[in-house]
Amino acid sequence: MSHNKRLRTYPLTKAKHVKVHGRTTQTRKPLTLFWTGSGIELNIKGSELWIEIEADYQVYEPWISIVINGVPMSRLMVTAGRHWICLLRGLNPDTVKNVRVVKDVQPMSSDSRCLLQIHALKVDGELLPVTDKPLKVEFIGDSITSGEGTIGAKEETDWVPMLFTALRNYTAITAEALNADYRVLSQSGWGVLTSWDNNPHANIPAYYEQICGVLTGERNEALGAFSDYDFTSWQPDVVVVNLGTNDGGAFYSPAWTDPASGKVYKQRLNEDGTFNEEDLQSFESAIVRFLVKLRTCNPAAHIVWAYGMLGTPMMPSIYRAVDAYKKKTRDRNVSVFQLPNTTEETIGSRSHPGLSAHAKAADELTVYLREILKK
Amino acid sequence: MSHNKRLRTYPLTKAKHVKVHGRTTQTRKPLTLFWTGSGIELNIKGSELWIEIEADYQVYEPWISIVINGVPMSRLMVTAGRHWICLLRGLNPDTVKNVRVVKDVQPMSSDSRCLLQIHALKVDGELLPVTDKPLKVEFIGDSITSGEGTIGAKEETDWVPMLFTALRNYTAITAEALNADYRVLSQSGWGVLTSWDNNPHANIPAYYEQICGVLTGERNEALGAFSDYDFTSWQPDVVVVNLGTNDGGAFYSPAWTDPASGKVYKQRLNEDGTFNEEDLQSFESAIVRFLVKLRTCNPAAHIVWAYGMLGTPMMPSIYRAVDAYKKKTRDRNVSVFQLPNTTEETIGSRSHPGLSAHAKAADELTVYLREILKK
Amino acid sequence: MSHNKRLRTYPLTKAKHVKVHGRTTQTRKPLTLFWTGSGIELNIKGSELWIEIEADYQVYEPWISIVINGVPMSRLMVTAGRHWICLLRGLNPDTVKNVRVVKDVQPMSSDSRCLLQIHALKVDGELLPVTDKPLKVEFIGDSITSGEGTIGAKEETDWVPMLFTALRNYTAITAEALNADYRVLSQSGWGVLTSWDNNPHANIPAYYEQICGVLTGERNEALGAFSDYDFTSWQPDVVVVNLGTNDGGAFYSPAWTDPASGKVYKQRLNEDGTFNEEDLQSFESAIVRFLVKLRTCNPAAHIVWAYGMLGTPMMPSIYRAVDAYKKKTRDRNVSVFQLPNTTEETIGSRSHPGLSAHAKAADELTVYLREILKK
Amino acid sequence: MSHNKRLRTYPLTKAKHVKVHGRTTQTRKPLTLFWTGSGIELNIKGSELWIEIEADYQVYEPWISIVINGVPMSRLMVTAGRHWICLLRGLNPDTVKNVRVVKDVQPMSSDSRCLLQIHALKVDGELLPVTDKPLKVEFIGDSITSGEGTIGAKEETDWVPMLFTALRNYTAITAEALNADYRVLSQSGWGVLTSWDNNPHANIPAYYEQICGVLTGERNEALGAFSDYDFTSWQPDVVVVNLGTNDGGAFYSPAWTDPASGKVYKQRLNEDGTFNEEDLQSFESAIVRFLVKLRTCNPAAHIVWAYGMLGTPMMPSIYRAVDAYKKKTRDRNVSVFQLPNTTEETIGSRSHPGLSAHAKAADELTVYLREILKK
Repeated sequence: MSHNKRLRTYPLTKAKHVKVHGRTTQTRKPLTLFWTGSGIELNIKGSELWIEIEADYQVYEPWISIVINGVPMSRLMVTAGRHWICLLRGLNPDTVKNVRVVKDVQPMSSDSRCLLQIHALKVDGELLPVTDKPLKVEFIGDSITSGEGTIGAKEETDWVPMLFTALRNYTAITAEALNADYRVLSQSGWGVLTSWDNNPHANIPAYYEQICGVLTGERNEALGAFSDYDFTSWQPDVVVVNLGTNDGGAFYSPAWTDPASGKVYKQRLNEDGTFNEEDLQSFESAIVRFLVKLRTCNPAAHIVWAYGMLGTPMMPSIYRAVDAYKKKTRDRNVSVFQLPNTTEETIGSRSHPGLSAHAKAADELTVYLREILKK
Repeated sequence: MSHNKRLRTYPLTKAKHVKVHGRTTQTRKPLTLFWTGSGIELNIKGSELWIEIEADYQVYEPWISIVINGVPMSRLMVTAGRHWICLLRGLNPDTVKNVRVVKDVQPMSSDSRCLLQIHALKVDGELLPVTDKPLKVEFIGDSITSGEGTIGAKEETDWVPMLFTALRNYTAITAEALNADYRVLSQSGWGVLTSWDNNPHANIPAYYEQICGVLTGERNEALGAFSDYDFTSWQPDVVVVNLGTNDGGAFYSPAWTDPASGKVYKQRLNEDGTFNEEDLQSFESAIVRFLVKLRTCNPAAHIVWAYGMLGTPMMPSIYRAVDAYKKKTRDRNVSVFQLPNTTEETIGSRSHPGLSAHAKAADELTVYLREILKK
Repeated sequence: MSHNKRLRTYPLTKAKHVKVHGRTTQTRKPLTLFWTGSGIELNIKGSELWIEIEADYQVYEPWISIVINGVPMSRLMVTAGRHWICLLRGLNPDTVKNVRVVKDVQPMSSDSRCLLQIHALKVDGELLPVTDKPLKVEFIGDSITSGEGTIGAKEETDWVPMLFTALRNYTAITAEALNADYRVLSQSGWGVLTSWDNNPHANIPAYYEQICGVLTGERNEALGAFSDYDFTSWQPDVVVVNLGTNDGGAFYSPAWTDPASGKVYKQRLNEDGTFNEEDLQSFESAIVRFLVKLRTCNPAAHIVWAYGMLGTPMMPSIYRAVDAYKKKTRDRNVSVFQLPNTTEETIGSRSHPGLSAHAKAADELTVYLREILKK
Repeated sequence: MSHNKRLRTYPLTKAKHVKVHGRTTQTRKPLTLFWTGSGIELNIKGSELWIEIEADYQVYEPWISIVINGVPMSRLMVTAGRHWICLLRGLNPDTVKNVRVVKDVQPMSSDSRCLLQIHALKVDGELLPVTDKPLKVEFIGDSITSGEGTIGAKEETDWVPMLFTALRNYTAITAEALNADYRVLSQSGWGVLTSWDNNPHANIPAYYEQICGVLTGERNEALGAFSDYDFTSWQPDVVVVNLGTNDGGAFYSPAWTDPASGKVYKQRLNEDGTFNEEDLQSFESAIVRFLVKLRTCNPAAHIVWAYGMLGTPMMPSIYRAVDAYKKKTRDRNVSVFQLPNTTEETIGSRSHPGLSAHAKAADELTVYLREILKK
């Protein structure tokens, strides 16, 4: 290969006009990407562009997608170590290309060594400013929102990063349809009160105010993952909460015993198969508390509780809880939206919604959000 | 990252059960991949798999796709040098995964340094046999068959490897629908008589009997690209020829002057805009000659001239030529099939058929080939 | 025309094996069809079949559809008077044809002269038994359930029978997908508490226990429309209630003054545009009362409140009311199902859901009902 | 019913602004409708409209469709006798409605008593002018063009008028997409040389210059069906010929013996299953002769031989014939277009192309004709 002598290297701190997507710290030396859908975006006038990226993990390797002019061109595993990855080459040096590098996998709370960082760029031209989109949307959720199962053969059952995507995902599709910047906070298996297996610590609300509090370990602490998030830095127009699916599952899962305290947790079913009312009430109270927190953090946002891609058993509870919150607070900027259920035709891998289920959910959610945003 | 100590490295010559797709030489030390759609396939019982791959180029870098259990999971540029690429990791070690690595780009006749080779594997389990599919199909064509424009934003105009794919392509889609192994021989811009710009050397028939004669340069010669291909090694049930689009374009392009001889070549239009009959006759004779050669090389194959994804101006000529061939030879196992035209809705990047145009063409071609194969 | 001498005429009372669909009286001399989707079904082994039908009206003429072997073949206005209509002719006399005549229009409560009756049949063969479907579904609703707007140009705005259909309707499509016999009770503009314009008499629950109590006039009385319906005669497995859309509209419509009492009725909005809580409570109480009545009349049926084809403003109220009913009664066989909203692409005439909106609603409702019926 | 006293009756000769579609005679006292797709069109400003229609037949009754503002609202059998049929009523008297009455069935050459006539109108408002569309298209064909099988259950096998439609037909769909007035000349089972069963009299070209020469009998003669058609009265921009399917079938059907002369006719297969060349040549000569006749009658039209909805065995012959014609005449305004084949998914009743096959054919033909018409 003949070397491209016009390439120049810039540490991220020196590269102008690199737009960062997703909740992260202020540090750019290097930039740490925590959440799925996070990444960088740039407009390059040049023929060739590389990034220096670093990955680490004990178990779960990160994956990224590379999007050129709005279309995903490449998707790849990032193995451990520090690598230069070529994003594009050989293009007309005089045209401007929009380039995004997107983390395709959620933060892995069970693997404290997971890491994805961007150190530097190499480019043979110039970077031009990236304008913000006219709207901002935040998505909060579980495996559905993490895009688990949106790629891969239907028979795949391993819980591995390869089967997660950020882009074949209702979050990305909705944001693109709305022409919105967006952020995602999601954890597979988690709920608003407990995880699918009754673990009361695996709930998103407890960590909502941190940059990425769902992670663990000293390195993540040192990176600032557990610091308070500055909500003033990015105020969404809409917050979409897609939680409840795992809270529903907890009623059908074995009890969880806290290894520290020995305390046992269980959302109970009545003998006739209905939900225990006391436990249902705990779930509803958790929703109300989370809505209060969301409103505090996002004073002007439309809050939409969107639920239903894997069935709707918790819908009456969600309606009751949102009702209770609204009655209590007189906050009218909160609503419930039912997402379309996944069918045999639209299922993906790991018994999760596939690309077509996400596309359908995005279509319906987009229509709903457009309506809300008119008001 | 904790190292996977069970990984063992095998040079390709020592790795059992690696199925090679596409025309290439007998050498596996290393294996050279020439054509688009070529690659390797394996069934791995293990949790982790790497390949050592080597790329080189002056201008046009290779791209590959990684297919797990029939679904494309990854697509990436392979930059110059020798790299270990992880194909999968962290999967259940006890299940068998089918893995394919597919070259996404055609041989680049204008860049003699283009190279893609596989040297070795690293695996923590065992490889199991890959059975052949019950059918074999060979596709011969131009940019359409090379998948030019099957990915990327509609506004993309650069002629770069990134915008070619082997899998979002009627060849791969048809082969999958027919449950067939397949090979592709294609060159963007080439025809059966001349290229789109009247170059009489840029015709596929002249190189059909070589392993990859469309390439140039000493390294490719040393690699065996210009050696005679052994047709007995892989006899297709069907040969699909999708040529004629560039031959048609030649009538509307400037003349081409041979730099060696100074001779000028031009397919001419009459003053009234119709095709010059003498030149049309040359085109038809080229078809007849190619059919004779195809029949010699593939005595038992159904030969289908499939044409029409970018309009059908040459269709009368193609019918005449196929008629003439059949009359002359009494060979009845040859037919013409019209592929569906590309529309504004189905166009891809670089004004070429997009994924949906290829999917539609594959659907119709599949129905036709199924019918033919019944006979 | 040469006369078919094998035709014989049978008054309906003498015709064996004529299955009657829809709520009506016991009388067959003649048979009166009240509701949309009602009609007769027969299996004819013969080549030719006619019915003698009678229609009357002041304003709103009836329409019928003729369905042969499950496919609508004919749709026509029935003008005033008594007519013989040929359902089929010239068919193979030895095969059995399933034939349905379906009333395409709802009972017209504002036109007391509306009438559609079947007197007799003429057939040149024999009628064979029609077996019941394994399931029975009852649909209760408003204009959506009456199929208003499911045919005709988008720009049509006249409120006329021509623009109603029974078959391009989620009721018929769902019933066919479920392989169910079905009945429909619906009135355009009506609600569970009031009509769209605040008329408290235009509510379906008040008339639910009569054969067709929504009608008026002495002739209808004489025909038995106001008699008590015998619920034991046809017990549905599922009751789908699609009401609430007009109750929601009432909040935005002018007050209605009872011409008899002078009393004024109005569902009120608060100054801030939200629903008045007291009025909302009246709506919810009406739902609870209707559920109690539905359960009394249909002891074993799954009751599904299905709502959402023209937006979901009343959904929180509906959930609250269904919750309240379930808490009060411990009846668990009641649920809420959100139907997909109508979009610009799926809208029909008269700003009502079109055929594609009904088809989509039917698809989703069918999946939901199948799930429920498994339990 | 209360009588609409504003209705006034007009014999067709006195009704202004009634546009007649389809080849017919000059007589309007009454108007005879011969061909499928023929009919009348009017713009009515009024609330109610009736027509007086007369039908007769020995075997095959006529059917009509009623189209309001471009949408089919009604479809009905017209039984023998003279009837008043209400086309619309109760509409806003102040808006203008476009109304078409369309004959849904081809002329029945085997039933000389077939008759469909329109005598008079009754209207309570005024008729306004109907403007001509900017384009004119003539379709010539067989059962496909007659819409046989475009309605009805897949298992239907009776050859009856009920299973024919003019509107669920590629002719109507193409014409609407092109915004064209159109005419259809078609006979089920007929070809360009012979019928499917080798009858050499059942060919369309022989009757092309008459108004409706495919009919028989004295009444049709008296009505003017056999008179010369005045081609200057309506010159199409495009003539689409969809013939060849039955000519192909003739090779596989028994011989036909002329009852008059005793002469036997048969398109022969060779022993190896290929078409006999001499007989193929007769077919091709018939195409050439028909093209010559079409050009004489339609000097300025684009002539498109469109073929392929039930397979393409005759395509090489058609290409050869069109080639031969073009060589002989230097006429360049003639081309071949392959229509998409019917598949298991798109088949209708009587093993003929269904609505979706016709819609697909219309889509592709429309794109092609638009391209041609640009030139």
